[in-house]
Amino acid sequence: MTQIVAPTHPFDVAVELSPELGAPGVFLGHTSPAYANMVGPFGGITAATLLRAVLQHPERLGDPLSLTVNFAGPIADGAFEVSARPTRTNRSTQHWSIELAQDGVVTTTATAVFGNRRDTWASTEIEAPPAPPADDVAAAGFPDFIAWARNYEMRFVAGELPTPEAGGQPDSTTTMWVRDAPPRALDFPALTSLCDVFYPRAFLRLGRYLPAGTVSLTVYFHADATLLAAQADDAVLATARAQRFGKGYFDQSGEIWGHDGALLATTHQLVYFKD
Amino acid sequence: MTQIVAPTHPFDVAVELSPELGAPGVFLGHTSPAYANMVGPFGGITAATLLRAVLQHPERLGDPLSLTVNFAGPIADGAFEVSARPTRTNRSTQHWSIELAQDGVVTTTATAVFGNRRDTWASTEIEAPPAPPADDVAAAGFPDFIAWARNYEMRFVAGELPTPEAGGQPDSTTTMWVRDAPPRALDFPALTSLCDVFYPRAFLRLGRYLPAGTVSLTVYFHADATLLAAQADDAVLATARAQRFGKGYFDQSGEIWGHDGALLATTHQLVYFKD
Repeated sequence: MTQIVAPTHPFDVAVELSPELGAPGVFLGHTSPAYANMVGPFGGITAATLLRAVLQHPERLGDPLSLTVNFAGPIADGAFEVSARPTRTNRSTQHWSIELAQDGVVTTTATAVFGNRRDTWASTEIEAPPAPPADDVAAAGFPDFIAWARNYEMRFVAGELPTPEAGGQPDSTTTMWVRDAPPRALDFPALTSLCDVFYPRAFLRLGRYLPAGTVSLTVYFHADATLLAAQADDAVLATARAQRFGKGYFDQSGEIWGHDGALLATTHQLVYFKD
Repeated sequence: MTQIVAPTHPFDVAVELSPELGAPGVFLGHTSPAYANMVGPFGGITAATLLRAVLQHPERLGDPLSLTVNFAGPIADGAFEVSARPTRTNRSTQHWSIELAQDGVVTTTATAVFGNRRDTWASTEIEAPPAPPADDVAAAGFPDFIAWARNYEMRFVAGELPTPEAGGQPDSTTTMWVRDAPPRALDFPALTSLCDVFYPRAFLRLGRYLPAGTVSLTVYFHADATLLAAQADDAVLATARAQRFGKGYFDQSGEIWGHDGALLATTHQLVYFKD
């Protein structure tokens, strides 16, 4: 007899999807209070949920190579529907279109590329930012009213949340050791969520909180399943900075490094802000 | 009497789309021999064509903020159909899903975010790469069998195409002054196409040509229409480098700078390669 075990880690509860009977590629989910942000859910958990829809789709080929998520409108607390459609399947790659909707209204769109990897020449051209070992850095969280951040153990190496005393900074870089709290073995959805773990870079430059939200998020996965599994539940080194702020938007580029120095993902996003 | 003038610049010919009668959001196009690549069209011209479908859609709101194009399969020489669908329209932003198909088979998918910009605090945190004025750099093209490259005047400041004598390089950076040939005033489609003007970074690192192709391309537009218009037909400074090569893929990040030092776009892509 197969025993269905309900997930217990808050992350697994948040990204849980049930296939809708008779509608292939359609999944039902529910927002999780544990991952609430100021308005709607934390973007990282939404991105992870959309990736998960592809991961549990019966036609899925291989592992994630890239993912782009567009945050089109707010997600209300409650149930939602995710539809994942393979737009094209090749010999070693597969392309997906994904939508999240509530009551028939699209809130989030995404595209993803999955594929099988082959051994090739390899080189990591960029370097990880300098950082002491995770255990040597004090854990410091977000203000308590940001629910989702309580699910991450963050150890800031540079660019922690601004304080009134610190004021604005000339550089928008944040670097931190981070992992799920409670600890959880890293997988593709968790890595996806970590790509959105950085608070808006405008906060750091201007030294204050302001309305801001991700418009579009892209993740390039460099880790395959084997490299991810080797991370176990250790902290990863996450770093991000902005390139350009102006006319209501800024872009941000980030990197997620394994504890062993392997580059697991690079990530980019465009963020709306109001000053 | 309204006179319809056919486009004459090769770029405008290549991205021309005709609305399909009775099918809102569906446009007919045709590949252009002038922008042919090794297999199918140059990715930049395809990305520009998809953006153009939104730009000429009657429901379009504002200017492009971000674009992600996924190259799902080869585009054959000949006719194609582009469908652009607004997935969500907000007060100041609009989200789009776009597909290019031939004979009903999807070859390319995309999502785009458009919107109206507001004046806000602005800051460009990164710096343009060092480069002498464009006129002081000799124009040097691609091998003549790469048709699309003949439509760009390229002046390499760093990282020109590898030669057998030069061999592999430790750094994958290419920086060049580049503009359309013949010169053409910069607009959003032309800027989009320029974001894909870099030859595959693996060529530079390994010092040789090898099979490679963009899988997914993202553009973040920092320039609004006014800043673009100010570029006229001057060369822009384009720079790109890879972060990580491995297991058959690498990622590349690039920047397009105006002649006056303004950051016009940042761009990222994931590229397939075979060594």
